[in-house]
Amino acid sequence: MSFERSGVRAAHALRPVRITRGFTCHAEGSVLIEFGATRVLCTASVEERVPPHQKGTGEGWVTAEYGMLPRATHTRSSREAAKGKQTGRTQEIQRLIGRSLRAVFDLKALGERTLTLDCDVLQADGGTRTAAITGAFVAAQDAVNQLLAKGLLKTNPIRDHVAAVSVGIVQGTPLLDLEYTEDSACDTDMNVVMTGAGHFVEVQGTAEGVAFTRTEMDQLLQLAEAGIQTLVQAQKDALAQPLA
Amino acid sequence: MSFERSGVRAAHALRPVRITRGFTCHAEGSVLIEFGATRVLCTASVEERVPPHQKGTGEGWVTAEYGMLPRATHTRSSREAAKGKQTGRTQEIQRLIGRSLRAVFDLKALGERTLTLDCDVLQADGGTRTAAITGAFVAAQDAVNQLLAKGLLKTNPIRDHVAAVSVGIVQGTPLLDLEYTEDSACDTDMNVVMTGAGHFVEVQGTAEGVAFTRTEMDQLLQLAEAGIQTLVQAQKDALAQPLA
Amino acid sequence: MSFERSGVRAAHALRPVRITRGFTCHAEGSVLIEFGATRVLCTASVEERVPPHQKGTGEGWVTAEYGMLPRATHTRSSREAAKGKQTGRTQEIQRLIGRSLRAVFDLKALGERTLTLDCDVLQADGGTRTAAITGAFVAAQDAVNQLLAKGLLKTNPIRDHVAAVSVGIVQGTPLLDLEYTEDSACDTDMNVVMTGAGHFVEVQGTAEGVAFTRTEMDQLLQLAEAGIQTLVQAQKDALAQPLA
Amino acid sequence: MSFERSGVRAAHALRPVRITRGFTCHAEGSVLIEFGATRVLCTASVEERVPPHQKGTGEGWVTAEYGMLPRATHTRSSREAAKGKQTGRTQEIQRLIGRSLRAVFDLKALGERTLTLDCDVLQADGGTRTAAITGAFVAAQDAVNQLLAKGLLKTNPIRDHVAAVSVGIVQGTPLLDLEYTEDSACDTDMNVVMTGAGHFVEVQGTAEGVAFTRTEMDQLLQLAEAGIQTLVQAQKDALAQPLA
Amino acid sequence: MSFERSGVRAAHALRPVRITRGFTCHAEGSVLIEFGATRVLCTASVEERVPPHQKGTGEGWVTAEYGMLPRATHTRSSREAAKGKQTGRTQEIQRLIGRSLRAVFDLKALGERTLTLDCDVLQADGGTRTAAITGAFVAAQDAVNQLLAKGLLKTNPIRDHVAAVSVGIVQGTPLLDLEYTEDSACDTDMNVVMTGAGHFVEVQGTAEGVAFTRTEMDQLLQLAEAGIQTLVQAQKDALAQPLA
Amino acid sequence: MSFERSGVRAAHALRPVRITRGFTCHAEGSVLIEFGATRVLCTASVEERVPPHQKGTGEGWVTAEYGMLPRATHTRSSREAAKGKQTGRTQEIQRLIGRSLRAVFDLKALGERTLTLDCDVLQADGGTRTAAITGAFVAAQDAVNQLLAKGLLKTNPIRDHVAAVSVGIVQGTPLLDLEYTEDSACDTDMNVVMTGAGHFVEVQGTAEGVAFTRTEMDQLLQLAEAGIQTLVQAQKDALAQPLA
Repeated sequence: MSFERSGVRAAHALRPVRITRGFTCHAEGSVLIEFGATRVLCTASVEERVPPHQKGTGEGWVTAEYGMLPRATHTRSSREAAKGKQTGRTQEIQRLIGRSLRAVFDLKALGERTLTLDCDVLQADGGTRTAAITGAFVAAQDAVNQLLAKGLLKTNPIRDHVAAVSVGIVQGTPLLDLEYTEDSACDTDMNVVMTGAGHFVEVQGTAEGVAFTRTEMDQLLQLAEAGIQTLVQAQKDALAQPLA
Repeated sequence: MSFERSGVRAAHALRPVRITRGFTCHAEGSVLIEFGATRVLCTASVEERVPPHQKGTGEGWVTAEYGMLPRATHTRSSREAAKGKQTGRTQEIQRLIGRSLRAVFDLKALGERTLTLDCDVLQADGGTRTAAITGAFVAAQDAVNQLLAKGLLKTNPIRDHVAAVSVGIVQGTPLLDLEYTEDSACDTDMNVVMTGAGHFVEVQGTAEGVAFTRTEMDQLLQLAEAGIQTLVQAQKDALAQPLA
Repeated sequence: MSFERSGVRAAHALRPVRITRGFTCHAEGSVLIEFGATRVLCTASVEERVPPHQKGTGEGWVTAEYGMLPRATHTRSSREAAKGKQTGRTQEIQRLIGRSLRAVFDLKALGERTLTLDCDVLQADGGTRTAAITGAFVAAQDAVNQLLAKGLLKTNPIRDHVAAVSVGIVQGTPLLDLEYTEDSACDTDMNVVMTGAGHFVEVQGTAEGVAFTRTEMDQLLQLAEAGIQTLVQAQKDALAQPLA
Repeated sequence: MSFERSGVRAAHALRPVRITRGFTCHAEGSVLIEFGATRVLCTASVEERVPPHQKGTGEGWVTAEYGMLPRATHTRSSREAAKGKQTGRTQEIQRLIGRSLRAVFDLKALGERTLTLDCDVLQADGGTRTAAITGAFVAAQDAVNQLLAKGLLKTNPIRDHVAAVSVGIVQGTPLLDLEYTEDSACDTDMNVVMTGAGHFVEVQGTAEGVAFTRTEMDQLLQLAEAGIQTLVQAQKDALAQPLA
Repeated sequence: MSFERSGVRAAHALRPVRITRGFTCHAEGSVLIEFGATRVLCTASVEERVPPHQKGTGEGWVTAEYGMLPRATHTRSSREAAKGKQTGRTQEIQRLIGRSLRAVFDLKALGERTLTLDCDVLQADGGTRTAAITGAFVAAQDAVNQLLAKGLLKTNPIRDHVAAVSVGIVQGTPLLDLEYTEDSACDTDMNVVMTGAGHFVEVQGTAEGVAFTRTEMDQLLQLAEAGIQTLVQAQKDALAQPLA
Repeated sequence: MSFERSGVRAAHALRPVRITRGFTCHAEGSVLIEFGATRVLCTASVEERVPPHQKGTGEGWVTAEYGMLPRATHTRSSREAAKGKQTGRTQEIQRLIGRSLRAVFDLKALGERTLTLDCDVLQADGGTRTAAITGAFVAAQDAVNQLLAKGLLKTNPIRDHVAAVSVGIVQGTPLLDLEYTEDSACDTDMNVVMTGAGHFVEVQGTAEGVAFTRTEMDQLLQLAEAGIQTLVQAQKDALAQPLA
């Protein structure tokens, strides 16, 4: 398969980002996020209890679960609930989402409650974990806003924005926000999670083919930094709208 | 909780039904069906292989899987993939959907391939299994149409429409198409699956509280028959549109 | 395989029903029920605790588990305990038995205790779930009688009898109480659960082949009503005997 | 709890042994064996295939599975199929039964087929594994006889009888064939499996309380030898009857 | 494969036994035991809680877990954690180790705490379960000594030594302490567990090929008695050294 | 807990590294690697078959499994085989080890065989995954050398060394090769995997507390580069020795 960036997208350009708040009605926060053809439904659920390791600490907990509908992908993948176990990939991703969100949360200020971010991929075209983190932040913010509005929280436990993007080197060219065909063809794949202030929360780079140099790494980090600034702005724009 | 049918809906009226074809892009058939606030994504996937029990018979297979996103409901329910097993309820529902679809399929005419209907509830407000059956039929038809268009099938293996609706008795009144609050309050709950020709494929009636009489049963079946006719017409209308 | 009702049994006749109480010695109720060659051991166990969802409600719980010995059938089926999971069919059946028994129980009057009905098929020849419900009722009654005799219960929490039978259409003929060869050949298969008063608790009809008409359904329900009256009488006769 | 051998049974006496052949109708061999109040249903199933490790060796396989109905015991134990795993005890017992039967089988003479012995305890009062071995032998013989009668086997692959009994020391007294109350009270518990020729197949002795001496061991082995001779005779007597 | 005892080892001789205390640093007791090329790491962990069945009894608990590294054996065996279940063999062995250790423990004197013996085979060459029992005793003693030194225990809850060895008949010759090639070739295989006082804790003899006679059994027990005396002395010698 | 680097180790110094080849006797490669008190046994197993996704491609496969003995840690952690599942952490680590090794393997040159690296932690004090990667490389080289020596491989499929180290920021100070107490206290934790040529295979940085800046990231990468050069030299030194 020979690589070619789809459409006229520039190497340093994100795909169109769309953030739809209030996508479903029951969750305290419910966001459909789209990075091009990738669509992830992120819901934030508030529960007035914490897992055992946080009991009695006065602190809350933020955690995430990730799933992919069987036919979110080109060919049907088997349903994890039917197989009776989550794959290593699923667990790795949901741990990443959880850590990323906790990085901007003051768990003390959250109080002894749990915020669960469920990120379910309706349609996949690369970058599902980065879209999930970016969308989960908005869902979390909506859930927190509801707690503040109800007086259940006095202060905002969210200290900063958090967003994520993938970068990679495909046939020698550093690219921002890989879609599926690019992801499959890339030599190096990196997921970067950053705060609104521009600091790193996670950097996960993997050489799929040949190992990458320090110079390449620097190029990728630079692309990611710019991309995440744009995503943070998209989060702010979405949250500035009244929630229907 | 005292019962009151929401809005001005008549006892024999369905909720607004919306059928959106081509909701996601990868599946051979992809339908979002809405019965009021209940929203189920039904995808149909074609695979050129059959399960062991059909191998070498020259016949195909039609099967279904059902899932509910953790926060499709009022309070978050735990993710089946994380718990490592599907509940009895889930298995019962997906077996029902599979049987219902097979009832209108000529498996010989389908050839040695498998059609898998994945029904995933994005938002639940009662009637998820009947919406799933009704939507899965449309997704199956779209997948079959694609096989016919590609010349992989010579004749249509689908012999008739199939659709489903719930009926129940709430505080003495027979009601069509129960929503969640009605379902929780009902004495008798019945799911009826019928063909376009008006014959029964499945009838599953359960007395939640007091047992029901033969007269009540007749009333419920009559409500269901009328409701299903309307749903079959909605399927036809949706399928008459060109697929974007 | 061409169908022929075994022996000289009439279409509307039950197979010989035998109910042996006190079949094993440890359980509070222990009944071997036989519908012809189908033999199910039903035990009722009383435990002085309730599942979490009933805790503190003052109500008891009635539940059922179902199993089939590996060689209860013509060819050996694999042991569920060895495979590590119950099939969907097993779960569906045990949920049905539990709901059927609860339909005639006043859980308030039972008090905060659990009655578990274990229905294990020693030999299968069709109708195992309906035999299980019919036998489980007798085991439950024996267990309740023991609680009453010991003064642990003041009033009888059982409000009515409950029994079940299968009906079906085989080659156009409606038949009562299908045995295995009939069950395999039938176009429509229906399990009906009714109370002693003649009201419906469950109706589960499935078109195995062609869909069935309203007229056929009425014929089947009529057969079932008569059959269940006979079964309820058999329960009464068995319970009228002194327990050895 | 102070120990007292029930009834007037002598220390060296077996409980009444009853062997009922043809207890169920589908299996190639089906035996209900009773050691006093202990009742185990042993079925032998013939399948014309072997497990992977025997494929292509020209040899057959003999294996066993063991189960206990939930209410075979004084208090209900949870169903292994529902818990999703067999206990260590169950696995230990079924491995013992399998090894014991294989000890008297010429697997070459059996040919590439599998004989599965399912031993399911209907009622437990101590000694279920020894009853299972003793009954499984009779079921295996009936299954082999059927293969011989059908001409599927030319020579008898069974080289000798095999039977088993428990022995133990209770409050200083060596006892044969422990029932449940004795088993719970015993200091040393030993299960012995022997051939008709009087040789040992398995000896499994465990000090539950204080360790046992060589002299005690010799006493126990002597008791077991005599008991097993009686059991082998009971097997012969049962097999001498025509099978109904 | 024709049998030949490796090296110049006599039929009644143990392989070289090496016991290394303090093999790892975190556990309360940590012993590497070697029976020739068989190497088992035995750690003893103290936890200040007991399993549910011991709660409130004032008694402690001693239990064991057993594992084999995937490449401890000639060919790689699959990892139990990856398969998601322990084999029957693993469960049988860990139950044996637990019972053997409990036989010399005064659980009352241990107090409400749990001692867990983890026996992990680094390299296997026959006799892993007997090496595990022999090494676990030393690890248990080290853990108890630490509790005594810290004043958490006033009296020693260990009443005697316990050690184990395998014996078997290979081509007619009774042999002590079988290594892998002998174990694979043997007709009879017996594991014997004894106390320092020379009493039996467990005797597990299995005829792999032909059944064994009473005379053969006596020869095997005699070999085992002598071997275990030597092992108990090796335990004493090891414990007499200061722990680095 | 206030942080203090143990002993006199400099911030940019590795702990003493020890690599013992031929640690166990059955595996094609068997290496005990020690990073200070962290000890990991890495075995390389060669199997002449490949997983399904590689069948018929002419390519081999390299994969890894990771485990931690229950008492490798300060307090006993439960055994994954007993719980019946590997944690998300375990799966993440074994996927990382597998990817890292594959990065330096020419799978074509390996031929249709599988190399499995089992990395089992005997004693943990931080950095178990980086020690595992560094040790697994040496075990893999030994296994490949054996294949070359036997003539099963014509050319060396290993293209370069691969080694790994952790770096982190503890109380503002960038440190190389974190031990457990440092790891628990650190704000940023990064695992870096590099080739002998000094290129990156994996970079996984996580902000445990506050997010890290680009400057901090550069400092960490520099520390890691130097550390990995030293580790690669240690691998070369170890491999230069004759294998006993």
